[in-house]
Amino acid sequence: MEIAGRFSISARRMSRSIIRELLKLTSKPGLISFAGGLPFPDTFPGERLKSICSDVLTTIPEVALQYSPTEGLPSLRETLKDFLKSRGFDAGKKQLIVTTASQQSLDLIGKVFIDRGDTVVTENPSYLGALSAFKTYGARFLTVDVDRDGICTGLLRKRLEELKTNAGSGNEYYQNMPKFIYTIPDFQNPTGTVISLERRKELLELAEEFDLIIVEDVPYRWLRYGGKEIPMLSSMDTGNRVIGLFTFSKILSPGLRLGWMTAHETIMDKIVQAKQAADLCTSAFTQSIADSFMKKEFMEGRIADNISIYREKLLVMLDSIDEFFPENESIELYKPAGGLFLWIKMPEYIDTDEMFKEAIDRNVAYVIGSAFYPNGGGHNTMRLNFSYPSSEQIHEGIKRLGNLAKDILKERS
Amino acid sequence: MEIAGRFSISARRMSRSIIRELLKLTSKPGLISFAGGLPFPDTFPGERLKSICSDVLTTIPEVALQYSPTEGLPSLRETLKDFLKSRGFDAGKKQLIVTTASQQSLDLIGKVFIDRGDTVVTENPSYLGALSAFKTYGARFLTVDVDRDGICTGLLRKRLEELKTNAGSGNEYYQNMPKFIYTIPDFQNPTGTVISLERRKELLELAEEFDLIIVEDVPYRWLRYGGKEIPMLSSMDTGNRVIGLFTFSKILSPGLRLGWMTAHETIMDKIVQAKQAADLCTSAFTQSIADSFMKKEFMEGRIADNISIYREKLLVMLDSIDEFFPENESIELYKPAGGLFLWIKMPEYIDTDEMFKEAIDRNVAYVIGSAFYPNGGGHNTMRLNFSYPSSEQIHEGIKRLGNLAKDILKERS
Repeated sequence: MEIAGRFSISARRMSRSIIRELLKLTSKPGLISFAGGLPFPDTFPGERLKSICSDVLTTIPEVALQYSPTEGLPSLRETLKDFLKSRGFDAGKKQLIVTTASQQSLDLIGKVFIDRGDTVVTENPSYLGALSAFKTYGARFLTVDVDRDGICTGLLRKRLEELKTNAGSGNEYYQNMPKFIYTIPDFQNPTGTVISLERRKELLELAEEFDLIIVEDVPYRWLRYGGKEIPMLSSMDTGNRVIGLFTFSKILSPGLRLGWMTAHETIMDKIVQAKQAADLCTSAFTQSIADSFMKKEFMEGRIADNISIYREKLLVMLDSIDEFFPENESIELYKPAGGLFLWIKMPEYIDTDEMFKEAIDRNVAYVIGSAFYPNGGGHNTMRLNFSYPSSEQIHEGIKRLGNLAKDILKERS
Repeated sequence: MEIAGRFSISARRMSRSIIRELLKLTSKPGLISFAGGLPFPDTFPGERLKSICSDVLTTIPEVALQYSPTEGLPSLRETLKDFLKSRGFDAGKKQLIVTTASQQSLDLIGKVFIDRGDTVVTENPSYLGALSAFKTYGARFLTVDVDRDGICTGLLRKRLEELKTNAGSGNEYYQNMPKFIYTIPDFQNPTGTVISLERRKELLELAEEFDLIIVEDVPYRWLRYGGKEIPMLSSMDTGNRVIGLFTFSKILSPGLRLGWMTAHETIMDKIVQAKQAADLCTSAFTQSIADSFMKKEFMEGRIADNISIYREKLLVMLDSIDEFFPENESIELYKPAGGLFLWIKMPEYIDTDEMFKEAIDRNVAYVIGSAFYPNGGGHNTMRLNFSYPSSEQIHEGIKRLGNLAKDILKERS
């Protein structure tokens, strides 16, 4: 039976995630992988969840095991608003919906805003999962470079001004200008950078000036290992232009598949309709678990524990890089103050795609940086994850990678 | 801020589910609702799930609380293949993916096959959730009437022959012919009908002859209260043309948000890519729970219990209709042999949309049948759910509805 001819245009353009395909190579025995983005399993509060599951199934089985509102359980939605408030963001007039974690939030945003050929602004590089969610709907990417202070708002202004000259007005304007600016302001994936306060203000000013929506994705924000917190775009947003994406995946457990989103009520109305068609509702059982976990005030302690575990791992990685990486002025290390990833720019003449194969031979893996550049580029970059491997693995893995880098630099010199 | 002008074409066409909006009216105190499609909460095995959660969180927290493969946990996938086999369907060459229940399966199928303007064959009437999932992608519906033996395959043949004359050949043919035939062969939603063996054979022959794919949705199949089981299309399918949609929602719990799908490997490849972009993976926690529940061989007992509970409720509804409904030859009752719904055709001159408001006034609710007809029609039909209300509520609710019907018929005579 001929099948391919029946697929939709979207389906024809889909491809398996490069990262997922690379990850298959990393299942080799003895290999140390910095390629994933998984939380450390020891951070999962199994015992506490056990007693919470028992509570939930004793007290509210008829809620937890039943269909639930598309928007999420009312009780959890209140709990999440309180949590955001305690973290400096009063959702106020914004609506809140519970999703099956941020990948679904990204998909719903794509469905609600993007028609084939529409433009979306992304940081360059940016999170692969967001790129592939938006690509499914036919998005084109206007990419704006990231430096150590996050997205370069000066460059963004220039590109927006160019676009505006031919954008027309009214609905035509909205169709021709970017549908939204997608950003990960805190410990960005993959670069680990944080957008400075100054640039956050500029970003919001640009959104106001060019009448644009901002999608703020904050999976790592609460995993800060040093330095001072900078306010969320969502909380600085006076024009109700920011859509906020939040997730339990990095602070509680990705296995629950739970996240949430805040947005202007007119946007939320469409998001709810899109979710109704996509999966009816999120699991009332996992929602009830998360709600109880937060109501028992376990979340702050959990976040604090995660921070101390990941801070230690990051230090091990930085020390190991000091110890094993070649001394070379052209190697740029993006030391993160939080999150799960460390970003390295190798000298221009190094191709990290090529280097990847040798790394696998030497039983160590990373993600090739080029995967995060939607329009090409980044051939000399790599992303290292430090949350999942043990400290011993980090030390040994960085030794292998550092020795490889030394050998390659020697060859080339 | 102007927002609507930024929405995608899909979003502009979305609307809140009519059923969900009607359900809001049914929250009136004292009202007895036959409008939902919810399982009876007493069927939820809370105690067993409590001990299973404890097991899972003790033995495999690092699996259950972590990210998992997009395809689903390997262990659950094997368990589900065994379950299908024990129920007469050897998935054999077909691939199996775990989803967050059938609404997601429907959404993924829409994403993979449907471009704006494409045709999909549905039964007339059909499940609203499927219609809205497909509509999101811009599907047009070729509707084929259902009688007491299910979809009228003779009518379908005629429509397909008409379409074929202008369909062209090669890829053009696939784009012009229906992308698939969507069917609920067992205890259809909303009519409760079962497709006869004869018609199942014809359906498969038509798929072969016109080179079409069939999507077989079987949420209610295992809730049979009488009569003899007829083989699934999936198991009769020698050409690997049938995509099977299965769910835990009606046999275990909708709150877990778990279902699965079987399909040809080329189709599954795209489904997996679409799911990757849509939500990365299904909850490993709820998957582990379902896997353990089935491995402990609790499922068959659960299904048997559901059957005895729902059979009793159906009998109460049928007896109450006998007792309270007006005697009128023009009222057609579709007595189901399984599932959750009973379908009633009122005399042609009755408008059940109009009647609905009076029903709410009299504290009883149903779903207006017209909601299930994608291209209009069914103004004199209604769907009654008997799984959720108690036997007492069924008796009293049918009394109210029957009296209303009597009054309306009297007025009109």
